[in-house]
Amino acid sequence: MDQKHIWKLVDELRSKKIDMKGKDFLLTWERSRDEIDATFLVADVLRAMREANISPKIWDSGIAVSNFRDNSTRTRFSYASACDLLGLYVQDLDEGKSQIAHGETVRETATMISFLTEAIGIRDDMYLGEGDTYQREVGKSLDEAVKAGVLPDRPTIVNLQSDIDHPTQAMADFLHLAHHFGGIDKLKGKKIAMTWAYSPSYGKPLSVPQGIIGLASRFGMEISLAHPEGYDLIPDVVELSKKQAAASGGSFAHVHSMEEAFKGADIVYPKSWAPYDVMQKRVPLLKAGDQAGLKELEKSALANNARFKDWECDEKKMTITTAGKGLYMHCLPADITDVSCKAGEVAATVFDRYRDDTYREAGYKPYIIAAMILLGKKKDAAATLSRLIERAHGRSVD
Amino acid sequence: MDQKHIWKLVDELRSKKIDMKGKDFLLTWERSRDEIDATFLVADVLRAMREANISPKIWDSGIAVSNFRDNSTRTRFSYASACDLLGLYVQDLDEGKSQIAHGETVRETATMISFLTEAIGIRDDMYLGEGDTYQREVGKSLDEAVKAGVLPDRPTIVNLQSDIDHPTQAMADFLHLAHHFGGIDKLKGKKIAMTWAYSPSYGKPLSVPQGIIGLASRFGMEISLAHPEGYDLIPDVVELSKKQAAASGGSFAHVHSMEEAFKGADIVYPKSWAPYDVMQKRVPLLKAGDQAGLKELEKSALANNARFKDWECDEKKMTITTAGKGLYMHCLPADITDVSCKAGEVAATVFDRYRDDTYREAGYKPYIIAAMILLGKKKDAAATLSRLIERAHGRSVD
Amino acid sequence: MDQKHIWKLVDELRSKKIDMKGKDFLLTWERSRDEIDATFLVADVLRAMREANISPKIWDSGIAVSNFRDNSTRTRFSYASACDLLGLYVQDLDEGKSQIAHGETVRETATMISFLTEAIGIRDDMYLGEGDTYQREVGKSLDEAVKAGVLPDRPTIVNLQSDIDHPTQAMADFLHLAHHFGGIDKLKGKKIAMTWAYSPSYGKPLSVPQGIIGLASRFGMEISLAHPEGYDLIPDVVELSKKQAAASGGSFAHVHSMEEAFKGADIVYPKSWAPYDVMQKRVPLLKAGDQAGLKELEKSALANNARFKDWECDEKKMTITTAGKGLYMHCLPADITDVSCKAGEVAATVFDRYRDDTYREAGYKPYIIAAMILLGKKKDAAATLSRLIERAHGRSVD
Repeated sequence: MDQKHIWKLVDELRSKKIDMKGKDFLLTWERSRDEIDATFLVADVLRAMREANISPKIWDSGIAVSNFRDNSTRTRFSYASACDLLGLYVQDLDEGKSQIAHGETVRETATMISFLTEAIGIRDDMYLGEGDTYQREVGKSLDEAVKAGVLPDRPTIVNLQSDIDHPTQAMADFLHLAHHFGGIDKLKGKKIAMTWAYSPSYGKPLSVPQGIIGLASRFGMEISLAHPEGYDLIPDVVELSKKQAAASGGSFAHVHSMEEAFKGADIVYPKSWAPYDVMQKRVPLLKAGDQAGLKELEKSALANNARFKDWECDEKKMTITTAGKGLYMHCLPADITDVSCKAGEVAATVFDRYRDDTYREAGYKPYIIAAMILLGKKKDAAATLSRLIERAHGRSVD
Repeated sequence: MDQKHIWKLVDELRSKKIDMKGKDFLLTWERSRDEIDATFLVADVLRAMREANISPKIWDSGIAVSNFRDNSTRTRFSYASACDLLGLYVQDLDEGKSQIAHGETVRETATMISFLTEAIGIRDDMYLGEGDTYQREVGKSLDEAVKAGVLPDRPTIVNLQSDIDHPTQAMADFLHLAHHFGGIDKLKGKKIAMTWAYSPSYGKPLSVPQGIIGLASRFGMEISLAHPEGYDLIPDVVELSKKQAAASGGSFAHVHSMEEAFKGADIVYPKSWAPYDVMQKRVPLLKAGDQAGLKELEKSALANNARFKDWECDEKKMTITTAGKGLYMHCLPADITDVSCKAGEVAATVFDRYRDDTYREAGYKPYIIAAMILLGKKKDAAATLSRLIERAHGRSVD
Repeated sequence: MDQKHIWKLVDELRSKKIDMKGKDFLLTWERSRDEIDATFLVADVLRAMREANISPKIWDSGIAVSNFRDNSTRTRFSYASACDLLGLYVQDLDEGKSQIAHGETVRETATMISFLTEAIGIRDDMYLGEGDTYQREVGKSLDEAVKAGVLPDRPTIVNLQSDIDHPTQAMADFLHLAHHFGGIDKLKGKKIAMTWAYSPSYGKPLSVPQGIIGLASRFGMEISLAHPEGYDLIPDVVELSKKQAAASGGSFAHVHSMEEAFKGADIVYPKSWAPYDVMQKRVPLLKAGDQAGLKELEKSALANNARFKDWECDEKKMTITTAGKGLYMHCLPADITDVSCKAGEVAATVFDRYRDDTYREAGYKPYIIAAMILLGKKKDAAATLSRLIERAHGRSVD
């Protein structure tokens, strides 16, 4: 990618009205359309700079806290890659999975880890009703510490997956779509099927499908949400997505089969998630450390799951997508039938055909995270990027 | 903070007689008063540089070993932040909590981790009589490896808490006091109450109170040490503090109640610690892995602790400090009554009033650690800092 | 070391015919003699640059994955030091010890961790027949991802110990020998004894002795391999070493006692390893998680080991080496009689005399690893090094 192209993106960025400095990136629907677009643009610029061997290192030193309250390899790598690209040093904060801290402890820890910190990435998706709340509590603590003059500067928080949204995933997914279809504006009128799919596991967070409908509904797309009875998402998020879809000139249909959703779809996103009520029942059990209760819940949830093994993205269902060539998406890892399990979310031949697409999709995440950090810390992102490009410092000596 | 102020600090640093290069920072009382003051000055310069967006990055590459033989989140973050600020990459050495290596193993490990290493931070505070010994053994191994030409350069050791002293904590505490009272010389004649406080836990190291009296006694302060019978500190450290207090024109009183200590105190530091004899009994039990013995010791220690629940820093006791406004200090986290426990070291309203002060206190630690590393590695710290300031490389691109 | 000397090394490097970019460093015998020599030269240049305070930092940002599927402190530190020296940020990939992933999982993980990655270091030595296979599978996955345009660039893989070879160890060992004897060409005709030695443990990988004979046989050395009956190495590696020895003008003798091997040896490398058939039996037991079977195997293996306690490198055996002063080598940690165990690989007095030599030997490893990464990523290493030297950026501000 040549420098001319990079400057074109920076110019486009300059035209966006944004107010992101000092704000946290927790839910895409808290950000204006210009701010969403700006995030895509910054991600594209950072990627283009790296590929043209122009270092986007903003910081000479600075800490990026990595707070994963649930397992993760891929998002951890994306976050570390993003922070390193900008010059930040990742320091893990291991609070353990079970402990849900509130009040004094959150306030104090948030401050103690932030004296020389620029960004805090948090994954907290296990407890419905708690992950987003926790992230906001950390944010409020930082505000107070800055106000009291205890911190010289406010770190920006990036939601690396909460109970409500998974914005780094959804934004990477849609940056992939923008590149695939030739621009984010090309998504207008496209049909996307966000559907539940069978998996021989249970308890997967709702935040991926919620993130997808919450973001797809900003671009005038025709959204089709499908899942078996009982596998509802958080009602407020569905309501919000409906409103957003209407406002953006798109539509939102809540349908009852994968087939209905796939019919004429340009994009399909078949993915397992736990039923809303199972997730609700799980929280008090997890809090109480009730292993027997959790085992019992898992057993009944898996038994219920098994009734819907036909919710598989197979070749037959793919034929009813647009021209039989709808774009398959997944946040990975997918449960692939006869590969990673006996019966799963997707048939092996379908996955095979779209493997590279899903890899490409994942490849946007580090840049999306880096863009969120940059925008949360620098008022005039276009100016900052311009300085970096003009500095013309190579990322690598050849 | 403007550059003029920074240069004033560097000039002041230039006037100090120091001989710290190649030495380890293990106990504050091994350092001359000029060296203590130089450490404060370097910390202040580094902080001022960072806040004026002048990068204090000394190293382009280099390893900083982090060897925590006891749990820690805050000191870990402080150490990582300090190292990153100077350009060092933190590499954890996990030797586990239980294993106390000596002889061949220490010598070999110390060398193997040091080929490209600039600093080694060690926390080893669980075993009375062993932490400081271990740190010195590592130091001796490094000396030998340098002498044999095996290492090109000697890494500097920073004591991140031993059984005897906690110099990064004590130094941060006193840099906070210097800023609070308008200069380290303003501490002369001020009364500081280092007192035991009740906590529903046991086995907390003695190194914090020892570090405080060992350092407070350098500045001509009126020290009042208070604790219930049996909660003695290491006798040698108390003796040394008495001598230092006398030599510096201050005083040292060993009193028997929190009230006596608080009376007319300008500064109060109420904090729980384990009784000396309990810590002594604990070492062979820990070494033998005698879980039953440890459980028994804990039970009796907690029962004994419970006799002293009135050793709480409450509103009533605060009224007898100077003008009822003595400065409350704590190394955090504090056991706050009705917040983190039913009965603790400090009343919630007292802690609330001083929360931001304790946060500010903690905020000096990364800079103190960075100063110790810089002084342990660079002969003429003022010259090094001058080069960094004149280089005028921004820490962050705006 | 002065710059003139550094430039001489770079000039020598320029004369080597190499084709290492985009290739992985898995087995030394896959690399031509020029490529082996080039690796030594780059390591020497990097070390000389660092010691002359010329920063060899090639990358301003970039990830180096650290994938240790077996415990390690020293190689971890060497890898981290090497990566940091070049400017790469180490990110751990913890897949756990037991899980041997293949197929889809390897392909996907390899891609997911590589979007912004320059190097991948892998230690996988526990499973005979699997470690090298796994590393090649990762490499193939990376090739496919680059071909599909999913990755912008191919990370280079460094074998940090497989079931077959331990090239970073063997190369560091021989760079040490080159310095000790005044040049790699001085090794021609020198006798090296690679012999088994007794240790009160079992299951140590075969890759160290295999790496040593696989590399020693490139330089025209007289190799003497000795071990008790049953302690064979992988037959293919022994065969290959014999052929290489003949081709390079050296010799390869398979003898039956430590004494026979030591006789007239210029270099001795006494080290414990597990019998080939025990390693073979171990794989299915490990895979099945058969703890009882593993216990049983350990018991019989240790009993068998105990028959060979006289395979100790003691003072008496050292007297029969060349002039009684053969150079003792070990990859460390050694099992030292009466120090780390009651009866071990080496007598305490022998080890004492050569301790600093073994430390020096280990000190080459970070530079060997850095050289492998540089050569795997930069086509014209001499040109890259020239740019770094001419840039003359100090590693440390004085």
